[in-house]
Amino acid sequence: MTAFVYGVGSSRYAKQPHLSAGDLVAEAVLEAFGDAAVDTVDAVWVGTVFGATGVAQRALHRIGVTDVPVITVENACASGTTALHEARAAVLTGRYERVLVVGVETMTAEFDGAIHPEQTDAEGRQGLAFPGLYALAAARYLHEGYATPEQLAQVAVKNHRHGLGNPRAQYGGEITVEEVLGSRPIADPLTLLQCCPISDAAAAAILGPERGQARDVAIRASAMRSGGLWDHRSESVWGFDLVRETALQAFAEAGVGPEDVDVFEVHDAFTIGEIVTTEALGLAEVGGGGALVASGATTIGGATPVNPSGGLLARGHPLGCTGVAQAAEIVWQLRGEAGGRQVVDARLGVVETMGGGVSGIDGNACVVAVLGG
Amino acid sequence: MTAFVYGVGSSRYAKQPHLSAGDLVAEAVLEAFGDAAVDTVDAVWVGTVFGATGVAQRALHRIGVTDVPVITVENACASGTTALHEARAAVLTGRYERVLVVGVETMTAEFDGAIHPEQTDAEGRQGLAFPGLYALAAARYLHEGYATPEQLAQVAVKNHRHGLGNPRAQYGGEITVEEVLGSRPIADPLTLLQCCPISDAAAAAILGPERGQARDVAIRASAMRSGGLWDHRSESVWGFDLVRETALQAFAEAGVGPEDVDVFEVHDAFTIGEIVTTEALGLAEVGGGGALVASGATTIGGATPVNPSGGLLARGHPLGCTGVAQAAEIVWQLRGEAGGRQVVDARLGVVETMGGGVSGIDGNACVVAVLGG
Repeated sequence: MTAFVYGVGSSRYAKQPHLSAGDLVAEAVLEAFGDAAVDTVDAVWVGTVFGATGVAQRALHRIGVTDVPVITVENACASGTTALHEARAAVLTGRYERVLVVGVETMTAEFDGAIHPEQTDAEGRQGLAFPGLYALAAARYLHEGYATPEQLAQVAVKNHRHGLGNPRAQYGGEITVEEVLGSRPIADPLTLLQCCPISDAAAAAILGPERGQARDVAIRASAMRSGGLWDHRSESVWGFDLVRETALQAFAEAGVGPEDVDVFEVHDAFTIGEIVTTEALGLAEVGGGGALVASGATTIGGATPVNPSGGLLARGHPLGCTGVAQAAEIVWQLRGEAGGRQVVDARLGVVETMGGGVSGIDGNACVVAVLGG
Repeated sequence: MTAFVYGVGSSRYAKQPHLSAGDLVAEAVLEAFGDAAVDTVDAVWVGTVFGATGVAQRALHRIGVTDVPVITVENACASGTTALHEARAAVLTGRYERVLVVGVETMTAEFDGAIHPEQTDAEGRQGLAFPGLYALAAARYLHEGYATPEQLAQVAVKNHRHGLGNPRAQYGGEITVEEVLGSRPIADPLTLLQCCPISDAAAAAILGPERGQARDVAIRASAMRSGGLWDHRSESVWGFDLVRETALQAFAEAGVGPEDVDVFEVHDAFTIGEIVTTEALGLAEVGGGGALVASGATTIGGATPVNPSGGLLARGHPLGCTGVAQAAEIVWQLRGEAGGRQVVDARLGVVETMGGGVSGIDGNACVVAVLGG
């Protein structure tokens, strides 16, 4: 048994506080229904982090999706991919025939530029919000001599260039390493253009068993781990161990390795995040992620393109929506429908999302999925 | 295949803002591990409504439950039973062997007495919070001549009496109908003692396949519906239709009827809620719920005891925890471990939880489970 993605959809990724969660969900879900050529679903999984209780039910009511189970899941930045993971399991185990996955987050009305540190965990009480957490990782990484500040910046250059080809992306443009390094300092060594923006957006996917349609995209594997907590005394920076273990599990399930994958959508919430993640996924040795991006291998047209959508840095990062947005991008890529950002002959794609409690250390989650092939 | 509850646990139900979510979860989960006589679990489902992102992962980390998938679900007041429903499905479909269910909510540090109306739905913007919503239902119910104010009050009298027998309950005592009706008006016709309190608490259960131990309690059926939205023009008051449909589905799956059930834990967030729910579950005709409670049938010792734990009115209502708390009570009842509130010869029990978006109308959810037998 294999679960397939029948269709996907999304809103634009932008600061658009004039649109409600319901507006965004309606747009994404209606596109997914049309793309999948189905009229009804048997159950719904929703990923959101800060969405109000019932946000999905209210939104779905507006477009006539009622009277079916709606299960809203929260798993930090991996909420969208957790919804996808659970929906796939529901298809594989025969619980439901057709399952809708929704990711949604409306952030600009709630936050004035950054997610507030959570007061219920130790790091949050110390004021250690995400930029500071990733900055610690970046500083350690640079200290080890693994990369140069210029290589960090090249992740932003690449992903903003990729964003140019994505009409739904929040940002996109030809920016230089100097512009990235010269942008406003956020948490040393990370500058503004090395940090993903907050966004308002929704994305959707409809899953089901094989139905013999060529446009449907197989979910070859999906692995989820939580609570693989980071020890400050670890030899690796935050996130590496958890992503590596989750990816190994997904690759084993799919029976492929990273060398078989044509296109990746990964969690580049900050430039250092993409570098460490490419290492954890096996695209480079530890300490080789900076050279990898500098070589052009992860650019569209390179050997292993990473974040052709623009990634979190340029497409945007509407938390609970992101995992579904990543999956939608991979579906478009594998179908050859990615337009100006198409990866030629993409047959196998990987989605990776990693997040944690608001402070990020004490309670993590990661999902890695392999699509296509 | 049948899923069984191996063990349960809970904190006290109380206003205890000095305890963190982690403190409460640790207490409940460690009791459940001991009760179940197991050392490890393969996955965790968590129900919480307002819990911060990662709240479960952080809490579980403290007691050594790490590196397994943790899926946090939100489904309004039915969040705890949604976690139970999903965990049961995971056992039934063979996804996991041993699954931990946690419900947790810490409310008193966040709310000053009542849940704030949600600003993202129509009713919330009108200021229609839960007491107002249930008051509309109660007023309509009284207007139809279905019950008297005294019968409404008898629900509170009964459940506070039941709470006396529950050492973990938030409240409990011998109160009179006059005291209930004379307590502070909240939303006419509902007075203070007809409204459940906010609470800080956690509850836990460990599920798995049959293992041949007499203390394990079978989950005979579990049904979940969402988005069964209430139409203001409905002939029934809020919640009735959704609970009836979900209960019919659960009874059909279990192959039993309400007349076969020995003990009920139902969603008495307000007195009118229990009355309407007993009708929706088939214990009385429409308009007969007031006479039912007045007859003593739903008191411990009556034909169909409802809320021996004290229910939401007296045990307390820590939102996402409530469904798991209800299930724990039914497990204790079916094992004969309910002490001073024991229902004699209880063999089959029902758990019912119903909730909605913060305003309660536009986005509802209900879970009904049948245990034992």
